[in-house]
Formats: sequence, structure tokens, C-alpha cells
Amino acid sequence: MQDTFSFSNIQQAADRLKGKVVRTPILESSMLDQTAGCRVLVKAESLQRTGAFKYRGALNKLLSLTPEVRQRGVVAFSSGNHGHAVAAAAAYVGCSAVIVLPKDAAAIKIENCRWWGAEIVLYDPDTEDREEVGRRVAGPRGMLVVPPFDDYDIIAGQGTAGLELAEQLAEEGIRPDAFVVPCSGGGLASGAVTAMKQAYPDLPCFFVEPAGLEKMAPSVREGTPRKRPPGPPTVMDGLSGPVAGTRTSRILRECAATGLSVSDDEVLDAMSTAFRYLKLVLEPAGAATLAAVLKRKADFEGKSVAVICSGGNVDPSVFIRALHAS
Amino acid sequence: MQDTFSFSNIQQAADRLKGKVVRTPILESSMLDQTAGCRVLVKAESLQRTGAFKYRGALNKLLSLTPEVRQRGVVAFSSGNHGHAVAAAAAYVGCSAVIVLPKDAAAIKIENCRWWGAEIVLYDPDTEDREEVGRRVAGPRGMLVVPPFDDYDIIAGQGTAGLELAEQLAEEGIRPDAFVVPCSGGGLASGAVTAMKQAYPDLPCFFVEPAGLEKMAPSVREGTPRKRPPGPPTVMDGLSGPVAGTRTSRILRECAATGLSVSDDEVLDAMSTAFRYLKLVLEPAGAATLAAVLKRKADFEGKSVAVICSGGNVDPSVFIRALHAS
Repeated sequence: MQDTFSFSNIQQAADRLKGKVVRTPILESSMLDQTAGCRVLVKAESLQRTGAFKYRGALNKLLSLTPEVRQRGVVAFSSGNHGHAVAAAAAYVGCSAVIVLPKDAAAIKIENCRWWGAEIVLYDPDTEDREEVGRRVAGPRGMLVVPPFDDYDIIAGQGTAGLELAEQLAEEGIRPDAFVVPCSGGGLASGAVTAMKQAYPDLPCFFVEPAGLEKMAPSVREGTPRKRPPGPPTVMDGLSGPVAGTRTSRILRECAATGLSVSDDEVLDAMSTAFRYLKLVLEPAGAATLAAVLKRKADFEGKSVAVICSGGNVDPSVFIRALHAS
Repeated sequence: MQDTFSFSNIQQAADRLKGKVVRTPILESSMLDQTAGCRVLVKAESLQRTGAFKYRGALNKLLSLTPEVRQRGVVAFSSGNHGHAVAAAAAYVGCSAVIVLPKDAAAIKIENCRWWGAEIVLYDPDTEDREEVGRRVAGPRGMLVVPPFDDYDIIAGQGTAGLELAEQLAEEGIRPDAFVVPCSGGGLASGAVTAMKQAYPDLPCFFVEPAGLEKMAPSVREGTPRKRPPGPPTVMDGLSGPVAGTRTSRILRECAATGLSVSDDEVLDAMSTAFRYLKLVLEPAGAATLAAVLKRKADFEGKSVAVICSGGNVDPSVFIRALHAS
């Protein structure tokens, strides 16, 4: 594996993914702008295949493998969008995939992985170690583990969302004043910030985490990857992974990105706002950037703010809760 | 006003609207395709400005006016997306607009029109004639009435959705086997079918109406525009206008388009399907084409079916009903 990461990795990923992923649209709403007090440019990655940006990184990884490695198949540990994306990408490139899920994962998430033909292995999170389960299943078959974020091919793939965004803004003649991206392990955030900084070197870039569960903000501040602090459960399941990445936190630190945080209530309200003004189904993690912009009106007032809304895989019950809350 | 309509009207409208409307994406889902038993290509006009295709026709009409006419302002009669679209288009071109609404119109619809700076005139549908109200308000000021559908500039504007769809399919190397479009007065249906038939002369084209309230199907069959038959209320408010257009029904007859119909339950189920697989917020009228494809599996089996999902302006309560129904 290479030891450095640069914008050229993202360009290579974009060439590899061309025509194979959705060039998701930039959406705007005058009514949203008035509510936010700034011009909000929404990159709707909820409209990506599998309903989230994760497909970009997974497919880039699988397309980068040698035929020999690919033929042995891949493994992913996930209870969310990453597993779904790896299963779909494996189906696309025609290799086998094993997805290791906790036995209490939502039925819909297990079904999604199975739908694409992946082999599902359930483990008991109380008594088993998932890495150990993965090694037991995949080791004898020589299968490659596809990491969820702290991998340059994954970062480059997710970064193509930022590259597209920069291209689309240029096509429309828009110069952004700020960029806001959601962040858990940091694959999307580090890749997309790298791409946006390439196009706009002085652009202020922000990453958004669940309030009280910030792990990337201290990692970037202190220069060392941190675990998620103990905290209450959050509706933002897509942003509550256990740890920030080593590579991703280093990239975000080098890019001088700044952490923001949002609460569950703010995110549910943003989901309702996206329903009303953008006609988008967003999952809580997917609405976190919008929530951050709506929350910090003074900071963004009068500016053009580009945000990535990262996914739309949400249970109807949670979506109904968001619509009732507003 | 010109007396004929052809594909060139749509091309002119597309030139006029270039960069001023959203080039809405074509979305797909492998899971949706399996559910439908065919490949479904969804043109997501719910992501258009004002949340519906109506903005295309309204803006094309206003951009076609001479400066003198435009300066006197425009009037629209509407309790739905047309009024919202005319108000937004008038704000864009900088002319004044009066929107005539029944006094029992949904508060959100009145607010939407007012938001854009339009003057709102409410009338009592039980005791007043809206045309009379409009003449009284707009006549002395020489304002032009923007008709909702039976007007070649409106038809041409809505038709740009079909022209874009044909272009996008060609870009992706996809040849559709069928085209399905929603239909009330017929502005979108006649324009979009004209554009799709230009690209694919033998393409089977279908328009979708609410079951029991079909007016365009008999109009096309008999060659004369028909009123909506008396029938139960429908959740598809966008498809329950009182009458089919003279021009629109003639165009659909010349294009040999075929009517389909869907029930409220089928449409609510399609809204839930779009939520789950496409991450789109669709209003009932906007999900009618998807409902028709899901209903008539035998007719579309194994085919590539292009559909327009026309709008996403739906009250949270109706959307929640759709999510609960599935």
C-alpha cells in the first residue's frame, strides 16, 4: 500500500468510477436560503447508488485490486452503509463478499447486504470479537478486508464526491465561501476536503460530528487519532463509529479543517427542512451538515456554503419522528 | 399566438431555459428494478425548482413575453404547483404576479405563492367564479393570464423535461422500451411525449390518471376534450384538475399515447417505494407513474421503462400516511 495521499489519488479514482457512480446533483432552494440566512448548495449523495457516498470508496477499492486478489473475494465489517456498499460493489465487479454484522443489526441492513448476493456472517458483539470472526471466515480463503475509512483507496473514492462538487460549482460559476462535510471515521471528510482545497486553497472547511461524541475534532487538534468518548446514544448512527482514522485525521489536520457538532434535535429538524424545501430523504447523518449550517447562522450569514448531504438510508419510523418534530 | 406545435417549440424552450432550471437527474435502483420486474429510469422532477416540473412551463412563458407585456404583470389561477411556479418565475424575471386561490386552499400553498412576492387574491369557490375574480383584479392593469396547461409555451416548457430525459438516456447509452408520464390537463404529458417521440418515433408512450377520474383517456380516444367525471376525492390533488386541454389532448392523440390509471392505495405504496429505494420525496401525483409501472408488471416485464416523477410538494401528514401504509 502506498504511504502518501494527494489530490492525484482522487483524480485517479474519478477516472476509475466515471460512468459507474451517480454524478449526484447540486440542489438549492430559495426558501432554504432564506431560512439559513445564506446560500446553501447541497451535494445530494443520498441519491448515490445504495443511498450513500460509501459506494464510491467501496467500488474504487474493488476496482483497484489485481484480478488475483479480487478473485479471492472481500470481507467488510459493518452494521450500516459500508457493508451495503461493499456488497453492491462486489456484485458490480463480480467478486464474492462476506459481510460481518452484529446479530442485533437492523433486519433491513442484513437484508440489504444479502440482496446483493453477499455472504452474511452474524456475530455476538457481547461475546465475540468481530475482527476474530472475520479472520476465521476470510483467512482460510485469502479474502481481503475492505476497511471502512482509513485507507487511501477508500479516501480517494469518497473524495470524488468533493471533486465532482468543485467541478459542478465551477460549471455554474459559483465560488463557495465555505465547505461543510459530515465526519465519523473521516473517509469522506478527508477525501472531500482534499478535493475542495485543491480547487479553492483558501476555502474554510468544516467537518460535523454528533455533539458529545466528537472524536475527530480532538484528533485533528491534538494530532493523534482518538476514540469516541462515552456518551448517550445518538440518532446519527452513521456518525457514531468507535474511532477516528490515523490517515484521515492527519489529512484533515493538514487541511486545517475545523470541527462542528450538532444535536439529535437539530438533525431531526434539518431532515424535516430537507423534506420540505429540497424534497430529499436524508438519514440523520446525512442531514448533519445542513443542521450545522442552520445552527450557526451568524458564522455563515450571507455566504455561499457548499455542503455534502451524505446519505438517505433511514427507517420510516425515524423519518416520521423527524416530520412530527418540526 | 401560433396555431401549431412541434418539436422545435421544445428546442426553443430548452435554449431559453438553459442554466435557469435544474437538469434533474435520472435515478435508478437495482432493488426497485427487482421489485418492478423491469429496469425503471426515474426522471426526478421533484428536484426541480419549486418542487415540480411546473416551473419549466411558467418560466418559458414569462421569458417568451415582450418586455411591454411582461411589465404589466401576470395572473395565474391555481391552488397548487402552477401558482407556486408562476410566482417563482415572475420573481425570477422581475415582473409582478397575482395568484388567484380559493380561500380554502392549504395554508402552505398560499404561503408559497406569497413568499415569492406575488399578490394573493382569495375567492370563495362556492359563490364566486374565479375567472371573473381574475378579470376584475387583472383586467384594469392589463395583466396577462398564464394558463396552466393548454398553451403552446407552457407545453413546450414542460416538454423540456422529456427532451432532457431523451438526451440523458442517449448519454448513458440506454434505449427505452416505454415512456410513462403523469397527466391532468396534459401540459407535461403532451410536451414530454412529443420530445420522446422525436428521439424514439416508435416508443410506446403512456399517460397516467387517477382511477375513476380519467378525463384525458376518453379525450384522446374520442378526439374531443372531456371534463373530469364525478368521482370520489383523490389523494392525487395534482392530477385532479377539472378538464383535459384541447391542444394537449390533440397532441397526445397524434402521438398515439395510451392512458393508464392508478388508485390512491397504489400511489401511496409507490411513494413509500420511492422513499425506500430512491430516497426521493414524491407527492402522490409525482408517484403515479411509478405506481403504474409497479401495478402492470406483466406489460413492462424485462423492459427499460423511463418515467417522469413530476413533483414532491406533499404535506407531512400525507407522506406519513404513505410510510405507514407500506
